Amino acid sequence: MPHQQRSEETRARILASALACFSRAGYDASGVAEICAAAGVSKGAFYHHFASKQALFIELLNAWLDALDERFAAARIQAPNVPAALRAMTASFRQVFTNARGQLPMFLEFWLQASRDPQLWALTIEPYRRYQDYFASLVQAGIAEGSLRPVDPQAAARTITALAVGLLLQGLSGPDSVDWPATAEQGIEMLLEGMEEKRI
Amino acid sequence: MPHQQRSEETRARILASALACFSRAGYDASGVAEICAAAGVSKGAFYHHFASKQALFIELLNAWLDALDERFAAARIQAPNVPAALRAMTASFRQVFTNARGQLPMFLEFWLQASRDPQLWALTIEPYRRYQDYFASLVQAGIAEGSLRPVDPQAAARTITALAVGLLLQGLSGPDSVDWPATAEQGIEMLLEGMEEKRI
Repeated sequence: MPHQQRSEETRARILASALACFSRAGYDASGVAEICAAAGVSKGAFYHHFASKQALFIELLNAWLDALDERFAAARIQAPNVPAALRAMTASFRQVFTNARGQLPMFLEFWLQASRDPQLWALTIEPYRRYQDYFASLVQAGIAEGSLRPVDPQAAARTITALAVGLLLQGLSGPDSVDWPATAEQGIEMLLEGMEEKRI
Repeated sequence: MPHQQRSEETRARILASALACFSRAGYDASGVAEICAAAGVSKGAFYHHFASKQALFIELLNAWLDALDERFAAARIQAPNVPAALRAMTASFRQVFTNARGQLPMFLEFWLQASRDPQLWALTIEPYRRYQDYFASLVQAGIAEGSLRPVDPQAAARTITALAVGLLLQGLSGPDSVDWPATAEQGIEMLLEGMEEKRI
């Protein structure tokens, strides 16, 4: 096997083992030693690929968000206009819920560590800023194409992101009796009702 | 000084000291001993009033939310209809932001402890459920008075709560360059635009 390919496989194995460890034992309780043992790699191999456990967590988070970005991009391409794209994006929220189910303690552990390290915190909240920029440009495109009223794109983007963050947090905090993805669809529907240009 | 009054004062002093300790040193690093020393009371006095540090934190949280509830009740009484009440409630969000500014690590520390204790977790998320019920009845009243469209009150209430939670979390996570209370007002305005009964 070529060196490059073996290296990629080692990296992927470490990421998968870390995710399994974090999900089972939590972020704090899963040390680099445990992750290496579960992946069957040396600490040397670990630190060849990742600067720290925190850096690895950020990579897991980004890989997870990259998958979401791809679904968003597909929704945007396939939708006839911006409101339709936003509705399709909200539908992919169900997958986000499924992936994050039961992981709130893991995120709280990571966020707490990150909140004590300004550099790590900047990396942690970077995706929110990226989503806000993304939704702001989407809203702007909606206004330009005439499907959305001339709302403030930044405020609309922050509102959409806040709604997603709040629904996710509430869904992960509470009992499973509520269909949160369905609530997300109803919520975005109410918001779109207020944002869409009315055809007269 | 009558016994009852002295006891109340001791309790209030412990709460004030605990809040000061938590804000300065964090929730985890502030032990009962430090709180007692700062309040000038014995551990016996502490445990006469509070079962644990967690119980005390829940009391702080509830006292803070009681103040919010009072502002909500005042907004409701003074407003001519439900949309106006929701706008006035959003305005009191500015106070919530001011109170919570800089306290995210403290909340993360507490939430993490609470997430490991089902009974404490139930107490921690109880306010969210209470606000959802409150907003659901408010939306229902709006539909009944004809100021709101016949939306699903539960979904609308969860959307409003999620928006508030998400805005608060994003506001506390990020830099101070964004006026989050103003964003909250713009967000609720877009949502109300979608929920309000249009006069034709």
